[in-house]
Amino acid sequence: MSTIYERALEKHVEWKGKLEVSLKAPLETNDDLSMAYTPGVAQPCLEIEKDPDSVYKYTWKGNSVAIVTDGSAVLGLGDIGPMAGLPVMEGKAILFKKFAGIDAVPICLDAREPKEIVRIVKAIAPAFGGINLEDISAPRCVEIERALIEELEIPVFHDDQHGTAIVVTAGLINALKLVGKKAEDVTVVISGTGAAGSSIIRMLKKLGVKTIYAFNKDGMVVREEYEMYDHLVRELVEITNSQRKKMSIAEALKEAEVFIGVSAPGLLTAEMVSEMKKDPIVFALANPEPEISYAEAVAGGARVVATGRSDYPNQINNVLAFPGLFRGAFDVRARKINEEMKMAAAIGIASLVSDTELNEEYIVPSALDPRVTAVVAKEVSKKAVETGVSSL
Amino acid sequence: MSTIYERALEKHVEWKGKLEVSLKAPLETNDDLSMAYTPGVAQPCLEIEKDPDSVYKYTWKGNSVAIVTDGSAVLGLGDIGPMAGLPVMEGKAILFKKFAGIDAVPICLDAREPKEIVRIVKAIAPAFGGINLEDISAPRCVEIERALIEELEIPVFHDDQHGTAIVVTAGLINALKLVGKKAEDVTVVISGTGAAGSSIIRMLKKLGVKTIYAFNKDGMVVREEYEMYDHLVRELVEITNSQRKKMSIAEALKEAEVFIGVSAPGLLTAEMVSEMKKDPIVFALANPEPEISYAEAVAGGARVVATGRSDYPNQINNVLAFPGLFRGAFDVRARKINEEMKMAAAIGIASLVSDTELNEEYIVPSALDPRVTAVVAKEVSKKAVETGVSSL
Repeated sequence: MSTIYERALEKHVEWKGKLEVSLKAPLETNDDLSMAYTPGVAQPCLEIEKDPDSVYKYTWKGNSVAIVTDGSAVLGLGDIGPMAGLPVMEGKAILFKKFAGIDAVPICLDAREPKEIVRIVKAIAPAFGGINLEDISAPRCVEIERALIEELEIPVFHDDQHGTAIVVTAGLINALKLVGKKAEDVTVVISGTGAAGSSIIRMLKKLGVKTIYAFNKDGMVVREEYEMYDHLVRELVEITNSQRKKMSIAEALKEAEVFIGVSAPGLLTAEMVSEMKKDPIVFALANPEPEISYAEAVAGGARVVATGRSDYPNQINNVLAFPGLFRGAFDVRARKINEEMKMAAAIGIASLVSDTELNEEYIVPSALDPRVTAVVAKEVSKKAVETGVSSL
Repeated sequence: MSTIYERALEKHVEWKGKLEVSLKAPLETNDDLSMAYTPGVAQPCLEIEKDPDSVYKYTWKGNSVAIVTDGSAVLGLGDIGPMAGLPVMEGKAILFKKFAGIDAVPICLDAREPKEIVRIVKAIAPAFGGINLEDISAPRCVEIERALIEELEIPVFHDDQHGTAIVVTAGLINALKLVGKKAEDVTVVISGTGAAGSSIIRMLKKLGVKTIYAFNKDGMVVREEYEMYDHLVRELVEITNSQRKKMSIAEALKEAEVFIGVSAPGLLTAEMVSEMKKDPIVFALANPEPEISYAEAVAGGARVVATGRSDYPNQINNVLAFPGLFRGAFDVRARKINEEMKMAAAIGIASLVSDTELNEEYIVPSALDPRVTAVVAKEVSKKAVETGVSSL
């Protein structure tokens, strides 16, 4: 066990919970009690009963998020169950507060069947202004998210899918700018077709990338094996270069300018990178151990390397996206987070790296850059209004 | 609309949510991020996966409560729905924090069928150390609470039933002491056989009261009408004086030393009080308008009068019970809140009024008395250990 894990464990014992509830209304006097509780509280209740929309005026709903997991795909740890996922949900909750001023609550579900999870999340929705799905395994996560988006009138967002995709897209926008290439002209190899991979593929398509080779544990995703795939991968067949015969990842990389890994450690070698097209861009995002280490990727000739780790340059960290995204959605009471808002978030993140600052080791702002949330929120709000999903 | 309601409404607009989430773990540096979130957070996750009990060591679970309602019986407002109930749940949440340091979260359920509510609450239980059911209509609330107590290994408590019963019992202990009577010797008339009434009847039986006449909208509860009642009232038939013929409430009061109303305004007159036995004790707890006003009850000759209101002496306020009760249960990791712990809470509350202070206008401590939670918690913890429900 490395020191970081020992220290983290000690800290968790010390904290005994990384979040707590605080009072915004005082409770010092009898008058305070009659304002915040009985009998005064009856009045906002009656107002909301008459006009459900006024719940945004009198309660925390407009600023609250339920962080919902079933613990089936926690970090890189896999299916550890809802209770063991709680430390991650608590961490996420404090990130929401710290970076976006949003009040988020861990909801760890002892439930597995997607329809049951949808039913439960719908049932708990009245007190929350948004739903952040977290660490739910693919392809169930996609089914659950789609059903909830369809059935709820508040933003529903699965961060493992789209948060990662947004930051990858932001990073790729800047990496391509740095090497002087256009999205339309590059071939991208993606390893991983689960939650993150499938969303990245969709976003890169929207960004203009024409050729994408998608790989998973069964090798390259190709049309002739359509029948073998789950519904999520079948959808990817439609939008990736599925007419090709199956290639090995090494073969595919020879045609590629960009590699994006959201899969497993140790998949790539320096040699494979060295055979990619000029100025290779390598996003090795498996966590904590990437598909290829930062050093090896550079040794193999990669021009730009990004990982999910904070101890190397260019960390692809979801915290660049989700706080500003929810902040922006909440600021204009968006009924959903649509594709346009996600792309606006990616462009917003990318815009924080100025042309003069942009270099191989700085393609995305730091996770702690205090400008990020405000810029992302502004772009997302604007796009929500433009696309007609704002309720204001 | 009275001034208190106007002011409360303005305050709610200003607060826009009476609670918020705060950080107990810092997020200022990259190291902070690696401790509270990835990669450090993986370690407590793995520990909890190995040893589920350690969730109490590494997370907020040991100090968190879900305040669950379906909005079917909110305050005296009735069935206003889950969203309109949110201001009350927020108020309850800050009472939990203020008086017991407990982190409570409003969960307003868009669900009605008791079995469905039980399923949902079980599903969300992993992240919470206790469940406080709130403002769920009778007799559903009883069915829901019983099923959850049976199926969960954390404290489940319906405050509208037992919170009220505990404080009524505390008040009655002191009122009887003041007038020099024993629980065994008095006859009690109770108006209301819903959530609060049925729990009060059970607790008074445990206190030793032998004769209880229970009334609801159908008049006195009697055995010969057993078939007409719902299962909750049928249970009361077994423990109240059900062999009697039906009496009017006025007739019953002539035999009674004590009246307890948890029903509807304007039920009692000064004349009816004047015909009660010597030194009448009148708890008129309908809220905000009691069964008989404080002044009329006194005019009718009541020796001790209690209401649910903060603007008269002897307020029967649940806040005297639930914070200390949960605090005490949490302090020894009680798996449930049993009858003995509830009675210990009542005796604890009553004990805070010393013999020299005890008088007609001071039978229970003030809702803001800073001693209450600690004393109740201590008594409850002790009883939890004695009765074998502590997990420590």
